[in-house]
Amino acid sequence: MKVLVINVGSTSIKYQLYQMDTEEILAGGVVERVGSPHALHKWRVGPTRSQAEIPAPTMRAGLDAVLAQLTGPGGALKDLSELRAVGHRVVHGGEKLVRPCVITPEVKEIIAKCAQFAPIHNPANLAGIEAAQAALPNATHVAVFDTAFHGELPPHSYLYAVPYELYLERGVRRYGFHGPSHQFMAASASEFLKTDQSRLKLITCHLGGGASVCAIDGGRSVDTSMGMTPLEGLVMGTRSGDVDPALSIVLGRQGLSPDAIDETLNRKSGLLGISGVSADFRDVEQAAAGGNARARLAIEVFVHRIRKYIGAYAAVLGGVDAIVFTGGIGENSVKVRSAVCDALVYMGVVLDAEKNQHADARGSGGVVDIAAPRAPTRVLVVATDEERMIAREVVRVTAGPTAARQRVTG
Amino acid sequence: MKVLVINVGSTSIKYQLYQMDTEEILAGGVVERVGSPHALHKWRVGPTRSQAEIPAPTMRAGLDAVLAQLTGPGGALKDLSELRAVGHRVVHGGEKLVRPCVITPEVKEIIAKCAQFAPIHNPANLAGIEAAQAALPNATHVAVFDTAFHGELPPHSYLYAVPYELYLERGVRRYGFHGPSHQFMAASASEFLKTDQSRLKLITCHLGGGASVCAIDGGRSVDTSMGMTPLEGLVMGTRSGDVDPALSIVLGRQGLSPDAIDETLNRKSGLLGISGVSADFRDVEQAAAGGNARARLAIEVFVHRIRKYIGAYAAVLGGVDAIVFTGGIGENSVKVRSAVCDALVYMGVVLDAEKNQHADARGSGGVVDIAAPRAPTRVLVVATDEERMIAREVVRVTAGPTAARQRVTG
Ligand SMILES: Nc1ncnc2c1ncn2[C@@H]1O[C@H](COP(=O)(O)OP(=O)(O)O)[C@@H](O)[C@H]1O
Ligand SMILES: Nc1ncnc2c1ncn2[C@@H]1O[C@H](COP(=O)(O)OP(=O)(O)O)[C@@H](O)[C@H]1O
Repeated sequence: MKVLVINVGSTSIKYQLYQMDTEEILAGGVVERVGSPHALHKWRVGPTRSQAEIPAPTMRAGLDAVLAQLTGPGGALKDLSELRAVGHRVVHGGEKLVRPCVITPEVKEIIAKCAQFAPIHNPANLAGIEAAQAALPNATHVAVFDTAFHGELPPHSYLYAVPYELYLERGVRRYGFHGPSHQFMAASASEFLKTDQSRLKLITCHLGGGASVCAIDGGRSVDTSMGMTPLEGLVMGTRSGDVDPALSIVLGRQGLSPDAIDETLNRKSGLLGISGVSADFRDVEQAAAGGNARARLAIEVFVHRIRKYIGAYAAVLGGVDAIVFTGGIGENSVKVRSAVCDALVYMGVVLDAEKNQHADARGSGGVVDIAAPRAPTRVLVVATDEERMIAREVVRVTAGPTAARQRVTG
Repeated sequence: MKVLVINVGSTSIKYQLYQMDTEEILAGGVVERVGSPHALHKWRVGPTRSQAEIPAPTMRAGLDAVLAQLTGPGGALKDLSELRAVGHRVVHGGEKLVRPCVITPEVKEIIAKCAQFAPIHNPANLAGIEAAQAALPNATHVAVFDTAFHGELPPHSYLYAVPYELYLERGVRRYGFHGPSHQFMAASASEFLKTDQSRLKLITCHLGGGASVCAIDGGRSVDTSMGMTPLEGLVMGTRSGDVDPALSIVLGRQGLSPDAIDETLNRKSGLLGISGVSADFRDVEQAAAGGNARARLAIEVFVHRIRKYIGAYAAVLGGVDAIVFTGGIGENSVKVRSAVCDALVYMGVVLDAEKNQHADARGSGGVVDIAAPRAPTRVLVVATDEERMIAREVVRVTAGPTAARQRVTG
């Protein structure tokens, strides 16, 4: 069974085409600057990389270029009828869409409603769905939500201590995000540790441009640091994460509008806000190494926040079997991993400095263990693959007699 | 040396008079409904309790009634000249006033400035200072700040990940509150455990109408849950504590003014917001026992949040020697203590159910240990006494040749 996974942003389309019998990637790529007459399509088929400037004034035009490439000469598909299932990454599914599902008109309505909590992402995701449904009317379209993995959070984790009516009437609660990544880390850790998820207590840290931590008990997300929106929790590239809720009130009294506060906390804060240098961790690391005091502070605050969440989730889980790192920073920053873990000896965390130094998850089958051999708590680095997780969910959703037959007949 | 400690709210004056050679309380009381012609003065001298309705249209009038009582027939003072030092509790001292200090005009200016982060408390505290200085012009007036104990927080704890200019220009940072209570708990724990504070890692939980947790390393506050204002952190009687920072943005877009958001998060949230029953923990516990589902939820969210902070601060401290509970809830709720500690076995916390059940700190010299005898981590219940801590700070500030002489001559 072949599955196309689409991840649509406001001006981009990322995609991967999987052969799910083997989880092989047949092709993948990205269209950048969608909405402009000079969009750029970069793609890969097997080991071959290519790119072309294309006109893509609309999402549909961008997608058509992708499909034309996939079915054209040297493409990965004979024709579009081979494509029976498409997986769409959707950021916010709210309380109603708590597992991956086939996209119906009702599902689209709910996605549109949830845009209040994900005003940039959800409308873009929806535009991608509309375009793909028009271009591939015979395929089954499946939505996989960033929030869905957290759909079984217990009330004591998802409720904020605000008037209960805000929850009942306006959906104010913790939803959590980065679901496919946390789920992928849990699955990878379980395979690597040869232990069924039902017997594992995990703390998974997705540290990229956005960042979140998740407490996973027996395969279920029981708490996570992002909240009603992806603004809460860790320090991110440009997002503040946790702040005193009174900050917005003080800024509001000083005359900032809700949009200006949004801009401040979502786009001018985080690593960028403290360092004044960049939202990109590598730049901040470099500036800190060069003696920039604010860059150093930014990293210290970033690390401190991760440490606090790991400690908090150890208490939520009542102990932890493994801590898992992923994302651009989690997979690559030796220093962040050691700074975070240094204080955690009391919970059985001891790194093997050598292994941490040379951890290369992508080059090592996707997972490496960087804990000292006899340490009670494992520390894993995982090369996350949210698209692969989405493709797996698509297979699960479309499974059944038909899907099984497809898989047998290839 | 006799010290009068004054804690002034917007409509109340609480006071205690100490003989600091022995830390004996000579007298104490409260004037309620200050600002009205029918204020109520309740007081105690030794074991005797009395009360009287008094006219107290102004703070000064209320204070004069207190002083008249103290120096009148059966009062604790011969005359006002005996009163050489007055300690004033002030909520917010900002970054400049990070230790208790003698009140000068400059100090008062800073207290006025810090009102932006404590708009109810600081102006009331200042009114109390003005009244007391006028009534007792020859006494030394000392301000003891709720924030001061946290004055040495490291930058990674006090910085939010927001534009650095907000810190530099507008003082946006974590200050922390409940300082005298956390400091008192640390001192009590140190005495009880016969271990110098320099060798102790403590997590102190002040659970009252307001609530906060503090990580104390070697006697210093290194992190705390309240932030720029007393709104951040734990679930409180009517305050939300932590929420997604985007909540204010969403409410603002729906038309709520900063004042309305303030009202929602500071006065209609917390235990009251979730339960819909009351801000008072006993009422909520009773409703929960009677089957009220929202009351039960409120308690679960309350407990979960405490557990997360204890876990987080264990990570910040790199382990913990003792967890300390105080405040109306911390001292009295057997269930909260056991629910919080139940998940913490992994960090060496094991309660003695019997000791927890019968813990009576006030009746046991101020401290009881409720941990199982052989458990690695101590769990203490402390009868907090913020006024006593403030009185001690007053002695420290006024100490020197003169103060020493006073102490000798009584
Ligand atoms: N070798 C590295 N060392 C430290 N940080 C890195 C390294 N490589 C990438 N990063 C950081 O990872 C972040 C991007 O993470 P990634 O997961 O790729 O992005 P996104 O979350 O936007 O999908 C950037 O802040 C980048 O600086
Ligand atoms: N026996 C008890 N069991 C549970 N909660 C209690 C008990 N006694 C007092 N409390 C709670 O303590 C809180 C008040 O705490 P306290 O420290 O006295 O107040 P404040 O913080 O306002 O000074 C209230 O919520 C009250 O219900």
